[in-house]
Amino acid sequence: MQSNIHLALVHFPVYNKAKEIVSSSVTTLDVHDIARICRTFAIDSFYVVTPLKTQQELVGKIIDHWLTGHGAEYNPTRKEALLLTRIKNSLQDVVEDIRDRCGQAPKTVITAAKSYPQSIGYESMRQKLQKAEPTLLVFGTGWGLEKSIIQRADFVLSPIEGRSDFNHLPVRAAIAIIADRLLGNR
Amino acid sequence: MQSNIHLALVHFPVYNKAKEIVSSSVTTLDVHDIARICRTFAIDSFYVVTPLKTQQELVGKIIDHWLTGHGAEYNPTRKEALLLTRIKNSLQDVVEDIRDRCGQAPKTVITAAKSYPQSIGYESMRQKLQKAEPTLLVFGTGWGLEKSIIQRADFVLSPIEGRSDFNHLPVRAAIAIIADRLLGNR
Repeated sequence: MQSNIHLALVHFPVYNKAKEIVSSSVTTLDVHDIARICRTFAIDSFYVVTPLKTQQELVGKIIDHWLTGHGAEYNPTRKEALLLTRIKNSLQDVVEDIRDRCGQAPKTVITAAKSYPQSIGYESMRQKLQKAEPTLLVFGTGWGLEKSIIQRADFVLSPIEGRSDFNHLPVRAAIAIIADRLLGNR
Repeated sequence: MQSNIHLALVHFPVYNKAKEIVSSSVTTLDVHDIARICRTFAIDSFYVVTPLKTQQELVGKIIDHWLTGHGAEYNPTRKEALLLTRIKNSLQDVVEDIRDRCGQAPKTVITAAKSYPQSIGYESMRQKLQKAEPTLLVFGTGWGLEKSIIQRADFVLSPIEGRSDFNHLPVRAAIAIIADRLLGNR
């Protein structure tokens, strides 16, 4: 099933703990977890965004192992999930890749802690996603996406509220919850 | 905030890929991720269940590092999350620990692929959880909980349906989604 919904996990530009703009390291488990989440919720493609060649090679090796190596035989569900995974230098490259593939640049959707002019609720966003226009869900690693990415986004979702003031979900968990809110069959 | 809701991540008895009953290995990242999810959704306690002493020691070391070691200073939000974490030999020990602490054995809730006499929907379970009776959400690792645990559970939730026939979410992602469905503020 094709949904025309895409997801990017951004490792640059993001903040570190000291609020400096850095390139965060790829967590290999993120790649597996998020690929599985994307496959479950019929998200078309999963982009790992990092400008660092060594990190790109690492992700490439993971994908190769599970697509063509011993892993493909050992665990075919990993293969199936990782088939969706692509590696790009920058968010701009992701947008261009989607435009090339779909004939139209995607609307970008991010989550942020504050309210913005582009803020939208989960239910409204869920309805928008039915329309099959290309949409790119963008998630940051480290201590969050550099703020100009937020300012340029087409839509901004509120952060996930649990039942406490603790606001430190791993990005893997946030992506799972947001995919379910926007795309889950409940 | 106290919720009287508890969560257990079970490493024995679970199935392996060949459908044999085994004790799975603890994934250290599960401990961190699930502790954070529990803290976010005000789940009272997070039990890591394994009968293997070496695995219990491993989890104990992780907790110690972040509660009292260098980690406590470096990343206090990990400390805050891991404060909820307990290690037990068996699911029975978890139930007894909750009974000792709360004066009442918890109702147990699991998720399973099939329908059972105890099957319940997410919205109905969400309402039950408002009542502040002790409740234990039980999740299996590996290829799933041994079937007698399912048969003895008080309630059985349906598996998460995404938008595809792919049904291989990591347990971390399933816990995040189920916590949000049952306890999230949407």
